[in-house]
Amino acid sequence: MNTLLPTEPAVAADLLWAHRFAQRTLGVSASAIRELLKLTEHPEIISFAGGLPAPEVFPLERLAEAARLVLEEQGHAALQYSITEGYLPLRELVVRHMAGFGIKVTPGHVLITSGAQQALDLIGKLLINPGDVVLTEEPTFLGALQAFTAYEARYVTVGIDDDGMRVDQLEEALRVGPKFLYVVPNFQNPSGTTLSLERRKRLVELASRYGAPIVEDDPYGQLRYEGQYLPPLVELDAEYHGCAHGERSFRGGVLYLGSFSKVLAPGLRLGFVVAPEEVIAKLVQLKQGTDLHTSTFTQRVAYEAARGGFIDQHLIGVREVYRERRDAMLRALERHFPPGVRWTKPQGGLFLWVTLPPGLDSAVLLEEALERKVAFVPGAPFFPLGGGAETFRLNFSYCSPDRIEEGVRRLGEVLGRHVRGEASPEPATTRGS
Amino acid sequence: MNTLLPTEPAVAADLLWAHRFAQRTLGVSASAIRELLKLTEHPEIISFAGGLPAPEVFPLERLAEAARLVLEEQGHAALQYSITEGYLPLRELVVRHMAGFGIKVTPGHVLITSGAQQALDLIGKLLINPGDVVLTEEPTFLGALQAFTAYEARYVTVGIDDDGMRVDQLEEALRVGPKFLYVVPNFQNPSGTTLSLERRKRLVELASRYGAPIVEDDPYGQLRYEGQYLPPLVELDAEYHGCAHGERSFRGGVLYLGSFSKVLAPGLRLGFVVAPEEVIAKLVQLKQGTDLHTSTFTQRVAYEAARGGFIDQHLIGVREVYRERRDAMLRALERHFPPGVRWTKPQGGLFLWVTLPPGLDSAVLLEEALERKVAFVPGAPFFPLGGGAETFRLNFSYCSPDRIEEGVRRLGEVLGRHVRGEASPEPATTRGS
Repeated sequence: MNTLLPTEPAVAADLLWAHRFAQRTLGVSASAIRELLKLTEHPEIISFAGGLPAPEVFPLERLAEAARLVLEEQGHAALQYSITEGYLPLRELVVRHMAGFGIKVTPGHVLITSGAQQALDLIGKLLINPGDVVLTEEPTFLGALQAFTAYEARYVTVGIDDDGMRVDQLEEALRVGPKFLYVVPNFQNPSGTTLSLERRKRLVELASRYGAPIVEDDPYGQLRYEGQYLPPLVELDAEYHGCAHGERSFRGGVLYLGSFSKVLAPGLRLGFVVAPEEVIAKLVQLKQGTDLHTSTFTQRVAYEAARGGFIDQHLIGVREVYRERRDAMLRALERHFPPGVRWTKPQGGLFLWVTLPPGLDSAVLLEEALERKVAFVPGAPFFPLGGGAETFRLNFSYCSPDRIEEGVRRLGEVLGRHVRGEASPEPATTRGS
Repeated sequence: MNTLLPTEPAVAADLLWAHRFAQRTLGVSASAIRELLKLTEHPEIISFAGGLPAPEVFPLERLAEAARLVLEEQGHAALQYSITEGYLPLRELVVRHMAGFGIKVTPGHVLITSGAQQALDLIGKLLINPGDVVLTEEPTFLGALQAFTAYEARYVTVGIDDDGMRVDQLEEALRVGPKFLYVVPNFQNPSGTTLSLERRKRLVELASRYGAPIVEDDPYGQLRYEGQYLPPLVELDAEYHGCAHGERSFRGGVLYLGSFSKVLAPGLRLGFVVAPEEVIAKLVQLKQGTDLHTSTFTQRVAYEAARGGFIDQHLIGVREVYRERRDAMLRALERHFPPGVRWTKPQGGLFLWVTLPPGLDSAVLLEEALERKVAFVPGAPFFPLGGGAETFRLNFSYCSPDRIEEGVRRLGEVLGRHVRGEASPEPATTRGS
């Protein structure tokens, strides 16, 4: 088992799942996967595969100071069992975050989760009965598919273009009767695309008309590097249903998911869900049986680090770093990728999305890329109904601009040979059928 | 919602669930529950209700030093995403813990979980299909029932006496065909009883014969205050199936669950499961969709605090404190509880178990106890098939000996009136039917 553990773990987690999926759907052999994963252990590998924030931007000193303070001044409470709902001051911080959207909620609308991934799991546990249909973008976030598929969800999907979900095709999908819609409107994982304002409004209107709740996953909303702020669906839902006493009331047609992973650090495993009080009460009951509560210690450390407007200040520098890396990747792609290959130009977030000419398979290219010590995640696993072999995801937040340039250069060489048709045929040993 | 949040949160969590259960099964009204919970907010309350370790025994300085070191020397890794399996040195620490039982496992047999509660949830997710039967002791741990019931488990139970599960009745229960056995052999929660060596051997033999895996939950194993060490079921299972090359091989008939909550601090939310590699692989896949991984930060802090044999050293003092509190409670019970009331004499752990004369209902007594500012958890929710109204659980780890004496004195007065038949009839407002 240990030989499978790479030096850059989250990369391998993504790759591992991608390859389990590939194995199931494409017949790639287990030993071939093991060989691929061994390559990711190499310290020299340039990884565009994971969804890892740059460790250089972690607010280490601030967190160290917060941890010191928490253990010194609140030690007994910080190390004790606590309530499932989450640390009240941290929930109040989420309340203020929502007030930034003009939406008034109380701590009773907020549940702190062990990463936003747990919010997806609990929502799946609450809402999905075996065979229920979930509506997603195509492609969509792998982690959501993992969470929902564990409860035996089926899927109906709506494709995307540069403005996000093709909302003109949404009504047809809604007629299938999905239990809920799962949407990542801002700088979507994996595609990097952002849902336009017009489409957001139309999506909220249609979901409301069909009585389907929306699960809005917004881990990257504060990581915008250019273009205009767009209101989240939760805000538009409140607006669509009218204002009460000059305040947008939280209507609850949208369950809003956020994360501290990209604004503080993912190793803390802290996320949250904002939902109607009666939904929170049910999620709390499920979470109690799932992990009792999220670490009291990390919740208090995150609160002490985040308080006083620190996150807003901190993000100014984070956006600077990521904007530079995104630009470095876009420049490198222009320079090194062959004609016929397309990619998205994200206005924020961590990822961009590459589409190869028809007939090429990114899973095959990955093998060659890993030989050249570059990693990415093939696109197919992001498609719940299959397809997407000609796509792949690139992360631009983790590597320095220099390594981005070098990695894309190597990838460009691999792609070039395939696009020009010079590549050698697939090695027989790595494909089952 | 906030008015429901008490000052001593985990007490309320237990009480809340106990009362949700009571509400469902006994018809207690929601408003009565709310009133009861408000009383637990009172700072003067003496709580025997939660399963809380004494905060005085948390190794605060050691953890503060560990947190400082982790953020100073391993900050980038400690705040980054990580592998689902858990931090390798922490898993190696578990491997050494198992070696203490003479059992040889590798890190590939270990999964770090967000508290042992998550191990219960993941095992439920993996093994239980709706309607599957789980075999438990009666009474059994509430958290296990919460975890398994979420996957629509049904139950077959075996009663307990002072030597733990009545193993002479086990074979009949095994004939029902349970998916697995859930057992807490050491200082069981809620009853405080310990399974005798003879019964342990017989249990392992019978489970093996019927091909039913055992889930052994052992959060209190290291908290023994008197009597002889008894080998865990996982050790006996290896022994029963013979030794390979002088080492007990891990056979995998027992999934062994442990926790850092009682040996370091529960606020970290760290537990583990030891299981065959192929089971771990499946649990890892489920955990990935559930919360991706347990906090990298808390795992590393726990490892740095625990390393070098610290836990063994630390537990010497912890056992001292808890033994004193157990003794204080046993003395107070002798002094203040009326004749006809029985209780267990635990050799370790955090709890003891009280049985009232037939016809008395501990849920009714709780209302009066809360008026006298003492809290406990009524026994009924620990019985998966109903019953147990005449029982309740007392925790002795959380309160100081003085408060234990005073709390038991007050409880004794309440009990005395009921046992002697002087109590006023149940107030009509607090019972639905």
